[in-house]
Amino acid sequence: MRSEELLLADIGNSRIHIYHNQKVRHLLPDDAIVDYGKEEIFYISVNQELEKRLQQETSWKNISGQIHLPNEYDTMGIDRKALCLSYDSGVFVDAGSAITVDVMERGIYKGGYIFPGLKAMLESYKRISPALDVPLVEHVDVTQLPLTTKEQISYGIIASIKTLIEKTSDKKRLYFTGGDGKYLAGFFRDGIYDETLVFKGMQHALKASKQMNN
Amino acid sequence: MRSEELLLADIGNSRIHIYHNQKVRHLLPDDAIVDYGKEEIFYISVNQELEKRLQQETSWKNISGQIHLPNEYDTMGIDRKALCLSYDSGVFVDAGSAITVDVMERGIYKGGYIFPGLKAMLESYKRISPALDVPLVEHVDVTQLPLTTKEQISYGIIASIKTLIEKTSDKKRLYFTGGDGKYLAGFFRDGIYDETLVFKGMQHALKASKQMNN
Repeated sequence: MRSEELLLADIGNSRIHIYHNQKVRHLLPDDAIVDYGKEEIFYISVNQELEKRLQQETSWKNISGQIHLPNEYDTMGIDRKALCLSYDSGVFVDAGSAITVDVMERGIYKGGYIFPGLKAMLESYKRISPALDVPLVEHVDVTQLPLTTKEQISYGIIASIKTLIEKTSDKKRLYFTGGDGKYLAGFFRDGIYDETLVFKGMQHALKASKQMNN
Repeated sequence: MRSEELLLADIGNSRIHIYHNQKVRHLLPDDAIVDYGKEEIFYISVNQELEKRLQQETSWKNISGQIHLPNEYDTMGIDRKALCLSYDSGVFVDAGSAITVDVMERGIYKGGYIFPGLKAMLESYKRISPALDVPLVEHVDVTQLPLTTKEQISYGIIASIKTLIEKTSDKKRLYFTGGDGKYLAGFFRDGIYDETLVFKGMQHALKASKQMNN
């Protein structure tokens, strides 16, 4: 079986993301176990609770021990490490409940930073005052300063994320993944959205680990 | 009485800020009314509830009608308008429960944007995950990418605010006020912290209004 044909899973807090035939399926744990429980699947997990269940009810194999990110830090999430392994160099943005931004240079982790996710940001304004309880403007214009509360909030969120990521990227490629990844990528001239990045990183790690053992 | 000697008040949601002898006192409403209720004070207010009480118990005068900011928008807070009137040109940052950033060019309001306040931002990370429940690093180093969760969160907050405000400022002066104003100003080479900015704006408005009536 070619490595591209491996079944892979990324176990999140509420969903199990399955990589199957180069597509990603986002499943509830029960559904994932029914559909794939008897398959050979390599997985990483940030959900310890669910992992116990997987060990009992499936034939899946945890490959966290094979995910090595040079210069990683202790409490770095395993999915974030896998994401960084997808390409040798680049800026990797995972826009979910939080937005993580990580920089890789020739296979070495150079550091990163964390924003609250878009939903968490909007919640945060809402909690400050009912006057700031507004949705995100669909097409935020970051080229000119806005004149309404709603637009000024969207600008505050999007322009600050965009400006810092652009500064970080320098000339590196910008990769986006996660639930808001496609939306965010749209604000960058060369933003690449790819929901399979974490799985690409897992494939690279498996390949490297196999080569090491040969 | 020279306009510099006027007693002025900025009525906030929980405090009354009194400008007296070129200093600012931050008082609870009860204390402010005991100390200054019988004085002649010109005020602006974002607190409609408290304003009713002031009308009954003090001889203070609401001067909101005299605060005119060219190109202001409908729902713009009166304290924010007064802040923008403090100088003819500049970028005005009020760092409180929310952080507002406003641009003035030769007396004309050019627009702005809104961030959640520092406390609200930290709360927002905490709500996403207990792993992100960290305090702000005291001395955030925005010159290099950090390698721990705590520093990556502080960097996400401070570097994004700093980078966008610097981009906005171009060559304009940067003025800071509000509870976190002094702290934030410290991240900018030429950041000017002045807790009397709103009152300077009120003085200018009163002066302009007097000249118009003469």
